[in-house]
Amino acid sequence: MDRSLPELTDAVVERIDAGRFDELGALFEKEHPGDIAEVLNYVDEEHKAKVFRHVPAAMAPDVLANVRDATLTSLLTGLSDKEISEAVNELPTDEAADIIGELDDEDASRVLNMLEEEDKESLRELLRYPEESAGGIMESEFVAVPEGVTVAEALQELREVAEKVERVHNVYAVDDHGKLVGILELWRLAISYDLQKVTPLIDREFISVPVDMDQEEVAALATRYELVEIPVVDAGGRLVGRITFDDLLDVIEEEATEDMARMAGTRQGDVHEESVWRITLLRIPWLFTGLVGGIGSAFLMSRFTLELESTLALAFFVPVITAMGGNVGIQCSAVVVRSLALGELEAYHMGRRIIREVLVALINGIVLGGILTAVALAWKGDLRLGRIIGISLFLCILWASATGTLVPMALRKLHFDPALASGPFITTMNDVVNLLIYFTVASVILSGG
Amino acid sequence: MDRSLPELTDAVVERIDAGRFDELGALFEKEHPGDIAEVLNYVDEEHKAKVFRHVPAAMAPDVLANVRDATLTSLLTGLSDKEISEAVNELPTDEAADIIGELDDEDASRVLNMLEEEDKESLRELLRYPEESAGGIMESEFVAVPEGVTVAEALQELREVAEKVERVHNVYAVDDHGKLVGILELWRLAISYDLQKVTPLIDREFISVPVDMDQEEVAALATRYELVEIPVVDAGGRLVGRITFDDLLDVIEEEATEDMARMAGTRQGDVHEESVWRITLLRIPWLFTGLVGGIGSAFLMSRFTLELESTLALAFFVPVITAMGGNVGIQCSAVVVRSLALGELEAYHMGRRIIREVLVALINGIVLGGILTAVALAWKGDLRLGRIIGISLFLCILWASATGTLVPMALRKLHFDPALASGPFITTMNDVVNLLIYFTVASVILSGG
Repeated sequence: MDRSLPELTDAVVERIDAGRFDELGALFEKEHPGDIAEVLNYVDEEHKAKVFRHVPAAMAPDVLANVRDATLTSLLTGLSDKEISEAVNELPTDEAADIIGELDDEDASRVLNMLEEEDKESLRELLRYPEESAGGIMESEFVAVPEGVTVAEALQELREVAEKVERVHNVYAVDDHGKLVGILELWRLAISYDLQKVTPLIDREFISVPVDMDQEEVAALATRYELVEIPVVDAGGRLVGRITFDDLLDVIEEEATEDMARMAGTRQGDVHEESVWRITLLRIPWLFTGLVGGIGSAFLMSRFTLELESTLALAFFVPVITAMGGNVGIQCSAVVVRSLALGELEAYHMGRRIIREVLVALINGIVLGGILTAVALAWKGDLRLGRIIGISLFLCILWASATGTLVPMALRKLHFDPALASGPFITTMNDVVNLLIYFTVASVILSGG
Repeated sequence: MDRSLPELTDAVVERIDAGRFDELGALFEKEHPGDIAEVLNYVDEEHKAKVFRHVPAAMAPDVLANVRDATLTSLLTGLSDKEISEAVNELPTDEAADIIGELDDEDASRVLNMLEEEDKESLRELLRYPEESAGGIMESEFVAVPEGVTVAEALQELREVAEKVERVHNVYAVDDHGKLVGILELWRLAISYDLQKVTPLIDREFISVPVDMDQEEVAALATRYELVEIPVVDAGGRLVGRITFDDLLDVIEEEATEDMARMAGTRQGDVHEESVWRITLLRIPWLFTGLVGGIGSAFLMSRFTLELESTLALAFFVPVITAMGGNVGIQCSAVVVRSLALGELEAYHMGRRIIREVLVALINGIVLGGILTAVALAWKGDLRLGRIIGISLFLCILWASATGTLVPMALRKLHFDPALASGPFITTMNDVVNLLIYFTVASVILSGG
């Protein structure tokens, strides 16, 4: 690579601004398709297709496979069916399927029909799997040999498919019915003698995943077992595809982005989105939820006008009650969400986590509730106010940590994304509940004590 | 593997409870070291070392390399120097260095002294690099050959080191001074004829990273260029190590966990921490920050007693103002933080992101401010209150999205972690600022209009 990515971007933008598109081809010649894809993500929507046409033909498929979905969509509208099918033809099936999946049904079937019979079949097959399942991220190309062959025969098979199958790290041993019986690591093959049978080289204690496993689970397996490539099998144990490390990297980043976006009350796409309208549409529903919750809080507080009029200082402590409830809730839920996402044992043994969180909340509640009581006393010299605030803060911390811990776990049990539990919906609900706790405590102490 | 991970855990816990530790060896025999490591993470601290002693000797090093830091620490205190050095001897240098790095200086140098001279040297070398740099995650084992050799000679080199170097996917071509000149992908070697020179197989447009590059940047490169293994070079371009895909997976997960934890006001370690006291110590500083901010809010509000007494309904809308400010702020900052973490171009071209966020905030501010004004009007029939609330909400949304966007960018410029910007510190500061905006607007409108 001649230039760093920011330099390349500047160079491209300069050419676009000057209308010198014809210089782009030479500029791209020595660059990496991954960088060109990043530049395409960055340039203005109206120029994307025009810039793409200057990508050297040999790189075009890889560039197309590496751009973001939003960029892909705008590129695809600018390309002809023939251009698309040529690129698709050069790509591994998983990347080809991602591209075809972005087309509308009519365009997709036109492009599919321009492909070779064999590719058409395996792509149709892949397109049937949900996008976020093992089947949705796998590619159908792999190197498989019967278990009785010699090393030379296995390598010959690899040689024959080498042009079509990228990033080979394993050769798979299958039986007569295509059932996966073991894995041959490539380095083992490479250092073994040609005439040797592969049988003793086969690892039979291998890990494979079913086509319908969720991609997050696949990624957790890959991390736990340090797998560079995972074979995917159908219900009968037949090898149908493989998931390579680059897909695993993508999945892990995607899932982390999605979880973080959910926590923040938006969606993964927001991180890459360019259109102000689409960003607004992603975010405003959650803000609207917050608004409704806030209006709820206002109505709730209005029911305690009597208390507020007698002790206006109650109002002063409203922000600290809601803020602390929010902070405790997000601490608990973020930790639980992340732990679940990493596929940790807490997913199965929740009792210990719950006990731990309750104990932490008790300590925090006593310490922070105590401090706030002291501050209120010192400031206002009002014992009742001190008691109201201390007790409420303690109860709010307990409530926030209970919901922060239990809601993600419950969501997971119900097969929803636990990350929803740390989003604005919960925060909003907690605001209302915490205010209810606060004013109820206030009302009891003010009237009774 | 005979059992799923939860089943294995249950089986182990059952044996521990019944005191039948001697049955653990047979239980572990057919399991994966990654699973045994997870179980060790899970069992009670006092039993960890005892359980570990029943791990079959051949697996022990891999198990040790895969447990979490907290588990490692408690295991290491239970093991003798000899046991530790035996495990370290069997591991790749990066994992060995991680283990030695957990020991205190005295223990570390005792264990180091029990190792072979060669290992001792490369481990000392590795331990010098910061933990989160390329040097800190690389291993010193790799397969390197001069560029003039034949395929057979390269494979012979691989064969000789195969026992010591795990997960080989690339062979590196170096010149007489050890300078990296290109990469030989293993599959290319495997399918080429023995007597051929490797020269034409060498990829010279390779990507390498300097020893001092931050691990997050390394992971972003790996994802962008789909690299299964990254060579690490020193200032003179000499090959000093390589980073393998399993390290990359770990880094990506670790960084995502750290960012999410920072957003939530805690630290990465919290996700795996078992001790209630340590969890409390991780979380309470941030809660304390929130408490101080909340007390600040209370004092601030007390300065506006006059306004509150004349229009108590002002208090009712305090929660909606702080909640909406918080929600907008976290949306912006999470998106910017994630975009920076993924190494996207926004890190260099910030202007566009800023404009976009301002526009989104304007739309959201107008829409939501309008709705809230209408609600206040309909409910209280007070035009001044409606104006106060609508204008304040609009200004608070603008402020929250400005800080949510600019603060992470500024932190990055100053070489701090941008994720700090979405944490409780900013939320707390925004609460105070938003209340100041709200009551200032109220005071102006109430006195003037």
